[in-house]
Amino acid sequence: MPGEQQPKSQPQRIDRYVGQYAERAVDMVASEIRALFSVAARPEIVSLAGGSPNVSALPLDVVGAMIGDLIATQGSTALQYCTAQGDAGLRERICDVMALEEIGAHPDEVVVTVGSQQALDLLARIFIDPGDVILVEAPSYVGALGAFAAYQADVVHVAMDDDGLIPEALEEAIQRTAAAGRRAKFLYTVPNFQNPAGVTLAVGRRHRILDICRRAGLLVVEDNPYGLLGFDSEPIRALRADDADGVVYLGTFSKTFAAGVRVGWAVAPPAIRDKLILAAESAVLCHASFSQLTVREYLNTQPWREQIKHFRELYQDRRDATLRALSAMMPAECSWTRPAGGFYVWLRLPDGIHSKAMLPRAISSRVAYVPGTGFYADGSGGKYARLCYSLPDPDRITEGVRRLASVIETEIQLRDDFGPAPGIK
Amino acid sequence: MPGEQQPKSQPQRIDRYVGQYAERAVDMVASEIRALFSVAARPEIVSLAGGSPNVSALPLDVVGAMIGDLIATQGSTALQYCTAQGDAGLRERICDVMALEEIGAHPDEVVVTVGSQQALDLLARIFIDPGDVILVEAPSYVGALGAFAAYQADVVHVAMDDDGLIPEALEEAIQRTAAAGRRAKFLYTVPNFQNPAGVTLAVGRRHRILDICRRAGLLVVEDNPYGLLGFDSEPIRALRADDADGVVYLGTFSKTFAAGVRVGWAVAPPAIRDKLILAAESAVLCHASFSQLTVREYLNTQPWREQIKHFRELYQDRRDATLRALSAMMPAECSWTRPAGGFYVWLRLPDGIHSKAMLPRAISSRVAYVPGTGFYADGSGGKYARLCYSLPDPDRITEGVRRLASVIETEIQLRDDFGPAPGIK
Repeated sequence: MPGEQQPKSQPQRIDRYVGQYAERAVDMVASEIRALFSVAARPEIVSLAGGSPNVSALPLDVVGAMIGDLIATQGSTALQYCTAQGDAGLRERICDVMALEEIGAHPDEVVVTVGSQQALDLLARIFIDPGDVILVEAPSYVGALGAFAAYQADVVHVAMDDDGLIPEALEEAIQRTAAAGRRAKFLYTVPNFQNPAGVTLAVGRRHRILDICRRAGLLVVEDNPYGLLGFDSEPIRALRADDADGVVYLGTFSKTFAAGVRVGWAVAPPAIRDKLILAAESAVLCHASFSQLTVREYLNTQPWREQIKHFRELYQDRRDATLRALSAMMPAECSWTRPAGGFYVWLRLPDGIHSKAMLPRAISSRVAYVPGTGFYADGSGGKYARLCYSLPDPDRITEGVRRLASVIETEIQLRDDFGPAPGIK
Repeated sequence: MPGEQQPKSQPQRIDRYVGQYAERAVDMVASEIRALFSVAARPEIVSLAGGSPNVSALPLDVVGAMIGDLIATQGSTALQYCTAQGDAGLRERICDVMALEEIGAHPDEVVVTVGSQQALDLLARIFIDPGDVILVEAPSYVGALGAFAAYQADVVHVAMDDDGLIPEALEEAIQRTAAAGRRAKFLYTVPNFQNPAGVTLAVGRRHRILDICRRAGLLVVEDNPYGLLGFDSEPIRALRADDADGVVYLGTFSKTFAAGVRVGWAVAPPAIRDKLILAAESAVLCHASFSQLTVREYLNTQPWREQIKHFRELYQDRRDATLRALSAMMPAECSWTRPAGGFYVWLRLPDGIHSKAMLPRAISSRVAYVPGTGFYADGSGGKYARLCYSLPDPDRITEGVRRLASVIETEIQLRDDFGPAPGIK
């Protein structure tokens, strides 16, 4: 009978909205970090990818009891909406934390954000028109690159060395931008124990960098998640401490308390602060009082300075294990940075080996890292890999580096037999 | 001596970044809702403004103990990063909640957001180019209007009556948009106990609205914060239940559990869901595990259906008190809606009286509301005021309405003596 041969109606598989997205959303693609979250979760893998803090080192029973009391006694505030700028008591405590880096800020200058990532998003939102130039380090934090790309920025990388951002390279980038008839909207920098490179902006360079930016009228965005996690010294004086009007400072409790509360903050000159508050209100109405009052209570009642010291020692042990294992096991053609704090070693692979192409083989060998390409807006960085040592135990780190060294040795063999990997920039 | 008469260097007061903001940020201005948060907090004011849920009606000691246990036993997950889509266990429970409105969704279709506000922001981000048309009810939710304005949408209001959005008016708006050579990106609707109007889309209109949108290829964004807070009936079948491919559904725990955890969600067709996840990752990396696991635990271990019933009764008492007081005390020239659920009564003022102009005098008389102008993109709505009865006790509501009636009577007197207020659209 007619009709019998007709295929049944199939569920719709194509995207019927494909022609309707905003221009900024057309090219959205999954980030390498996201794909890695699921890989890193498999227990047989030694994950040197992640970037997650070691929250198990918190006294979870004590923190739990503190939060239980908070909700029982102040739940009608902690479970309610608050203002878009954030809880006033928390903003006071944030100023205490920043005082450790010699920042003299007033709570009115602080905007609480959903982690530092939201601060990056809000800054991008208020500053970036499509095609605007943003200066960043080479390499730079993948989450910042993602936020800037979401607003269609033209990201320009500025070279670093072992002392962080190179002042001459910054001047040259500013001049090159100006010569092209353009002006950068801001410099984004992670001065301490940088993600991903693990290097720190030398104290002797800090005034120079500030001077260059001040003369160029260039706003500095100082992102400092790891500043209190230095292994060898007192916290370094922040850039913000020397230029309240020229620097937007970003902080977070993700690495000094808990990433899962998503409490970060921005300190900004008044006009920028006002726009950040309005943008935050439009984005999320307000951040969770639940998280904010938990952090406030933690800072008010718990020995948070001692906890940070404990985190420092824990990460220093893991940094040491990483550097020991790298020295003992990596092929001679590899080199790497030696971080004085934070979570990351930046590994340079032998010539002709591409970190992204190598990743599936590394995962087959049960070790994961983030390919360097994630930290460059232009797809370069293939000769590098980011190793994060924050989460595994020292023994697991050693085993992970052993596996990685073995993978790289196989790659060297393949390269020598068949020639270098293509597409390394 | 020369120089002695020169003024000392003053702190910089003007905004040195004024020429550098993105186009979308140039016109950012403080919303009326934000200004009202601080007013509403003053204890001598009866606030009918807010929109805050009555979280004190939760058993705070029980909830506190539950959260304390959660952190003590699962803190290493609850205080850690998670995926941008949100906790899988929570997404399962969210599907249980939506089943009450006859939605058959899979946890894979759910994206957890920082309240519904973030879902609105992310939808705006992925759909709205500057100048794009978005259709909304007249009046519409102020937070949605703010999110759409932040992406420079051209918002077109569509008329409602006591049965919600008027199908003929929707068809006409679609045709008018098409006749202008444009196409709307989506229809934004709050079908149940609407904010601010308090009306509900009649069951008999729902298929009609869906048909009109399907024929026009128009995506529907169904925002449903109050759907489980109906006083007289079982939850109404959601629009999403009848068109999984044509509707993005937004839900939240702000009104059925706690606003301060900021847990909302979106359910979207796969392609839109994927973009929402990527946009969420760019905006906040991930939402707080702390909040997500708290809600998951609450739904897994606490009698949440009974708690919603308790909230319903509590809000019904307050709705009843509001309607009684309005009937007893409002001048004859006023009229208002009679909500069958949710938080809001939409009050129409006497001709020639402007709700925004009246607000300072109302606050002097120790009663607050939100002027109707906040709920129209074009600044109209001055003849309306939104009264929210969710937070004050019934006695306070009665007193608030008494004060407001007295203010309006004075306004009537002024109008009769001096003529109508200017600028009412």
